[in-house]
Amino acid sequence: MALIVQKYGGTSVGSVERIQAVADRIIKNRENGHQIVVVVSAMSGETNKLIGLANEINERPAAREMDVLVSTGEQVTIALLSMALHAKGIPAKSYTGTQIKMLTDNAHGKARIMDIQCSNMQKDLEEGNVIVVAGFQGVDECGNITTLGRGGSDTTAVAMAAALKADECQIYTDVDGVYTTDPRIEPKARRLERITFEEMLEMASLGSKVLQIRSVEFAGKYNVPLRVLSSFEESEGAGTLITTEENEMEQAVISGIAFNKDEAQLTISGVPDKPGVASDILGSVTEANIEVDMIVQNVGEDGTTDFTFTVHRNDYDTALELLTRTGETLGAKNVRGDNSIVKISLVGVGMRSHAGIASTMFAALAKEGINILMISTSEIKISVVVAEKYLELGVRTLHSAFGLENDGNLVNL
Amino acid sequence: MALIVQKYGGTSVGSVERIQAVADRIIKNRENGHQIVVVVSAMSGETNKLIGLANEINERPAAREMDVLVSTGEQVTIALLSMALHAKGIPAKSYTGTQIKMLTDNAHGKARIMDIQCSNMQKDLEEGNVIVVAGFQGVDECGNITTLGRGGSDTTAVAMAAALKADECQIYTDVDGVYTTDPRIEPKARRLERITFEEMLEMASLGSKVLQIRSVEFAGKYNVPLRVLSSFEESEGAGTLITTEENEMEQAVISGIAFNKDEAQLTISGVPDKPGVASDILGSVTEANIEVDMIVQNVGEDGTTDFTFTVHRNDYDTALELLTRTGETLGAKNVRGDNSIVKISLVGVGMRSHAGIASTMFAALAKEGINILMISTSEIKISVVVAEKYLELGVRTLHSAFGLENDGNLVNL
Repeated sequence: MALIVQKYGGTSVGSVERIQAVADRIIKNRENGHQIVVVVSAMSGETNKLIGLANEINERPAAREMDVLVSTGEQVTIALLSMALHAKGIPAKSYTGTQIKMLTDNAHGKARIMDIQCSNMQKDLEEGNVIVVAGFQGVDECGNITTLGRGGSDTTAVAMAAALKADECQIYTDVDGVYTTDPRIEPKARRLERITFEEMLEMASLGSKVLQIRSVEFAGKYNVPLRVLSSFEESEGAGTLITTEENEMEQAVISGIAFNKDEAQLTISGVPDKPGVASDILGSVTEANIEVDMIVQNVGEDGTTDFTFTVHRNDYDTALELLTRTGETLGAKNVRGDNSIVKISLVGVGMRSHAGIASTMFAALAKEGINILMISTSEIKISVVVAEKYLELGVRTLHSAFGLENDGNLVNL
Repeated sequence: MALIVQKYGGTSVGSVERIQAVADRIIKNRENGHQIVVVVSAMSGETNKLIGLANEINERPAAREMDVLVSTGEQVTIALLSMALHAKGIPAKSYTGTQIKMLTDNAHGKARIMDIQCSNMQKDLEEGNVIVVAGFQGVDECGNITTLGRGGSDTTAVAMAAALKADECQIYTDVDGVYTTDPRIEPKARRLERITFEEMLEMASLGSKVLQIRSVEFAGKYNVPLRVLSSFEESEGAGTLITTEENEMEQAVISGIAFNKDEAQLTISGVPDKPGVASDILGSVTEANIEVDMIVQNVGEDGTTDFTFTVHRNDYDTALELLTRTGETLGAKNVRGDNSIVKISLVGVGMRSHAGIASTMFAALAKEGINILMISTSEIKISVVVAEKYLELGVRTLHSAFGLENDGNLVNL
């Protein structure tokens, strides 16, 4: 008998009929002999409706009261899902964030989980109950209601799984798993049966919006096997399992190709090179609370340096203005920017032990005449910046070069 | 500086505009130098909407889950009202039943209040906050959410006032106070400036549905001055104050005339009179969980007795059937019933010290040809049962006979 935590999002519980379908799925899992804890979101549309009401009353509603308000959405769902299970003859019991008690800090709207008390739940499970937990919400030490921020229900599910030492945490979504890349760009993209936490983090942070990043971090930290699967498919063991790296006979070098269209690039060149120049250049940008992603610096032969970095495209105009002023102060030769670029990344834990990945990547892109504007590497990722017009061609070229469509990149370790 | 607890029902907070109007009223009271605790219901229609959803999913939803579901209604209102106060520059803080903590027994849907912890609230009040409390809901010792039943927000308000030792508990409704009788029957009915808890209980239990009976009992028990007033009127000190009997110079003999159209009368006559006959007669009725209101017994000259009682009209058919069987067992001469009767009652603490009230009442009714079917008296009430067709005439006759339209029944004590 396994203990499984399942999470269903707002679309999966968006109507009476869908709540009943979720109940059926839970019952099926239960009949396979599993103990089930379910984490649910608010019915789709409800949270936005409540936020709309709040904004009618107050343009800047207090975060504490906003949490009191929006947390009612999940509370409605847990009651209705429990009633649906009862109607089908299954014992079930609902818990709010306050009741379980999902202890968080007091950062309303983006609280972080600190502890969960599960003693009641263990007893309820032993008595045969399905436990239905309100996602997204917690309670601080003073008893104030908090929320974890949008998508926080994923994190609730992982935290529950960690606290209860569950055998698996299943996140039901509208896609059936994690793909080698976006199937809308490369129709040959293939669903991954498994992926490591680290790879998933890179994929997620690069725009594969299957899971909330925090939930993946949490799962990795507490080693909770995490499975992404579709609400609309039936077979057990489907989807993508996100888990720790294991010593398997076969290991993929590259797991997937992620990309990010939200960035813009800025370059300051011909800056006299001396200690502290990097912090001088980035100082005004970070003071303006603009987040910097990639950073590349080259030292030229004439004692000057070229410095390039990327920011979110929304921050491009401000960053360019600030950098122009910095350039004048530092006596730079030139300041320029480009907001029609994209970042394409190869992700895979396998590349740790394999040389030649980078050169294969660069050669494949060169063959298609795609000019690389910027390169950045990490242990399990190689990212290149290219002109936006090359996004689709670049992704498809790399997908094919590493044989992602047909497991072609498996190697014996 | 006074501490005032105000309660606003669902209609008063039924829209964004009304919530803002309630905020304005609170601010006005606060500007008069008062500390304010506000108890609110769910926005009108919300509770029924939630119950509708539940019934779509489960014909007999579990009471525990029902409480989890419907308690979200008040939680939405407390957040929105707090935001409305913030928007007008007033510090405010919301509390759910769990947060205050409104400790109740675990009778879901009809829980009784056992204790309130007010330490946080005292501090919040001292810091200048308006406290906004979710009515109708509580929490049991295990942390389960409970509700007090329909109209329970009145009880929440009185309980808060008792716990905080408030100077007054104000219940805002759609009427501007308690009247000498129903103005729809007697247009000359007059608003009472004050009434005692005992009188209000009699008026409420007889169908004047201004306040929930439990809230009046609670207020009497803890001696909380209770004021009923209109959400739509402006002046302070208006409405009707419900309070303890005081030694005032002038005291009304009769405060009001209540009536009840929901009763039916049953009579068993010619029963051999012996000890225990009353309990034999009522036994089968009370075993069927039928509540009996008035009971009158007369002993005849032939050693038999006549026994008459009233029940709720919904229980009439069952009660008549049971009584017929009892009549056969006991050898009664006759069993009959009448479900087109009404009860009319004079209510007033003043009648304790004044003889002649009953004879004035009977004479006034006789003068209009109204036949009295049954009489019952208590310390502060005289009730008569008459044919239903005489309801309006009877009420108006008594209203006039005791000069209720113009304070004519005031006497020097």
